[in-house]
Amino acid sequence: MIPAYIVAIGDELLYGQTLNTNAHSLSKMLTDVGFKVVKHISIADERQVILDTVEEMSKVAKIVLITGGLGPTKDDITKKTFAEYFNVGMRRDEEVLKHIENLFSSRGREMTELNQTQADVPTNCKTIPNALGTAPAMWFEKEGCIFISMPGVPFETENIMEKEVIPRLLEFFKPPFIVHKKIQTISIPESILAQKIEDWENNLPSDIHLAYLPHLGKVTLRLTCEGDDKEKIETELNAQVQKVLPLIEKYVYGFDDETIEGKVADLLKEKNLTLGIAESCTGGYTARTFTQHEGASKFFEGGIIAYSNDVKIKVLGVKLDTIVKYGAVSEQTALEMAEGVRKLLGTKIGIATTGVAGTGGGTPEKPVGTVWIAYSDENETVAKTYQLTKNRNLNIQLTTNAVLNLLRKKMIEM
Amino acid sequence: MIPAYIVAIGDELLYGQTLNTNAHSLSKMLTDVGFKVVKHISIADERQVILDTVEEMSKVAKIVLITGGLGPTKDDITKKTFAEYFNVGMRRDEEVLKHIENLFSSRGREMTELNQTQADVPTNCKTIPNALGTAPAMWFEKEGCIFISMPGVPFETENIMEKEVIPRLLEFFKPPFIVHKKIQTISIPESILAQKIEDWENNLPSDIHLAYLPHLGKVTLRLTCEGDDKEKIETELNAQVQKVLPLIEKYVYGFDDETIEGKVADLLKEKNLTLGIAESCTGGYTARTFTQHEGASKFFEGGIIAYSNDVKIKVLGVKLDTIVKYGAVSEQTALEMAEGVRKLLGTKIGIATTGVAGTGGGTPEKPVGTVWIAYSDENETVAKTYQLTKNRNLNIQLTTNAVLNLLRKKMIEM
Repeated sequence: MIPAYIVAIGDELLYGQTLNTNAHSLSKMLTDVGFKVVKHISIADERQVILDTVEEMSKVAKIVLITGGLGPTKDDITKKTFAEYFNVGMRRDEEVLKHIENLFSSRGREMTELNQTQADVPTNCKTIPNALGTAPAMWFEKEGCIFISMPGVPFETENIMEKEVIPRLLEFFKPPFIVHKKIQTISIPESILAQKIEDWENNLPSDIHLAYLPHLGKVTLRLTCEGDDKEKIETELNAQVQKVLPLIEKYVYGFDDETIEGKVADLLKEKNLTLGIAESCTGGYTARTFTQHEGASKFFEGGIIAYSNDVKIKVLGVKLDTIVKYGAVSEQTALEMAEGVRKLLGTKIGIATTGVAGTGGGTPEKPVGTVWIAYSDENETVAKTYQLTKNRNLNIQLTTNAVLNLLRKKMIEM
Repeated sequence: MIPAYIVAIGDELLYGQTLNTNAHSLSKMLTDVGFKVVKHISIADERQVILDTVEEMSKVAKIVLITGGLGPTKDDITKKTFAEYFNVGMRRDEEVLKHIENLFSSRGREMTELNQTQADVPTNCKTIPNALGTAPAMWFEKEGCIFISMPGVPFETENIMEKEVIPRLLEFFKPPFIVHKKIQTISIPESILAQKIEDWENNLPSDIHLAYLPHLGKVTLRLTCEGDDKEKIETELNAQVQKVLPLIEKYVYGFDDETIEGKVADLLKEKNLTLGIAESCTGGYTARTFTQHEGASKFFEGGIIAYSNDVKIKVLGVKLDTIVKYGAVSEQTALEMAEGVRKLLGTKIGIATTGVAGTGGGTPEKPVGTVWIAYSDENETVAKTYQLTKNRNLNIQLTTNAVLNLLRKKMIEM
């Protein structure tokens, strides 16, 4: 096992002003190729803290990925602190300088003195190209431990990792395989799931590790095993999956990195169906869940965000009477929205959401968290209701999950 | 300065399967009341690693917040490892048990043996109620250092922090004040910004710390100062803001935690305007950016997600001729979409996005990243184009930012 550590440098992380997404994406990339991530650390832009952390890491790690502190401004001190740690000076890297010049001229922007200093690096490092930005990554070696310093900007760093760092690390080390097999479940609580598979879990071989990962009404079961014979491990994990599956089949929507929206998208494309979405309380979030992924245009025609009653009536054709009699958050309104959007956009399927997302807007009869969702095709239009939480964004996400699961079930029945 | 450390426990973090949002939100809460967050650490669900980390923290920290590993299933070992560290046994907490029973009966769900074990805690801790979940938080003391163990589920932990932990910590310690003042800028690169304010930056008093935080085409300037006299610090920081402002005024959209969409929302409400959105390439993201915040219904009437050409024509009234002659990604289509949605929804203002988000769909004339946005009110309809990146989700976010900035500028002109 080749231990890897991920260090993020930046005051903004410790102040809670920036979310550290790099530790997450870098860990996934390292794990996928068999390195073992042991620890994430976030520290301040402070000389002594950086020096102490690098020294500590050099004693336990084989790989240390460092993100952040490479910007052109005065608060960024990672480069000069590394030069101090290794007791070397700085040099201007001509290749990096050329890359920065090209980047600026292709964007038609003026280049400053500050930008040029981004080509300055400690003399003992190899530079690694940063195709999407001005700060290069740097590769340092010390007694068999590799330190790689990268920018803090997530899309730059992810690109550098994928294109440059991972291939170089695989050349340098020969990692064992860590294999994960994941089972994705929905609408069953973690504790009930654990009960259903208790006997199976107790009989798992000791080299297979099981974890429950709950997330917004979904629970991922993750099986993990490590070794040199990738094929053998995979066969063993797949056999365990086949054993447990019959116990929980109706809650399983997918495997590994499949998402519920990805599964629904696959089913829609497979059955040659088109989708229209009418959203009130989810305000665009449900459509966005589909459109964040490439290829949504193959089944998703469009959506109506009917935030006001006026739009529900004028665009979706909900009857004024329905809203007056039952309210905008009601079974009847949800049904008319789903049918309305299906007919308006000429899709095979229409879905709708309407509810009190919160934080305000609740009444004694319809408190915050009251939600109606509906599904409509040429044969039927049905609705379901939920009493969710007091948290606005949680309610929006849970409503979207409920719609996705309803869609999935309807597709499977077809 | 009262040093605080945040420790996250969970294999899923190190595998890159779950993003650690707790470190972010907990840091913000601690910083806001004057504690100094020194380090974030994420480690595995492993007995020895947890024991070593807790021991290490006890030597340097005054406050250690630990998240994760409190679930009811076998992979969660935080509680028993804490009992081992403090060399104590476990007890069943009757109050917590009653809370769990109430939670299950109110949700109409069956309670399992496993759920009951969530009321078991080390004998030396005080339990802290978790209103939104079954696992209680735990307060341990050791030689003036406070350890607080909380669940990994973000909305549960944030609620526990706000309602229970922060008040107790403020009672226990008397923290100094850390004051931040932020200036939010848009559409100016970090290096140009640094040039414009260079003289001012060089003359900052040594106890005021300046940071540049770039994020998706926006740069936050953050001034930080620490001390006991909150009012004096604030006066000093405000004076510095007033000094720098004239140098960069036209790029500044707000201060402190103001967001660009929040600023636009305020301007729309102030001027009594209503908004309709027509989205193609952003697929609901722009509407979602507004509707994630409470009160969007005060100005946001609704949106049309016109993903297919059919919906652009049938619902928004874009002319078939326009699409045939210029394409869906064109100035003409963007203009007709913005005007179309304004008229359809009867709003004062309409905005539109259309572009090649990617990853696929690019052509030599309109490569991935080509985007048109448009703005329409009763006096004018105008469009702007951008050549963005190769990254789909980045393009969607940058397009939304461009629309927001266009809206902001138009509001200010009015």
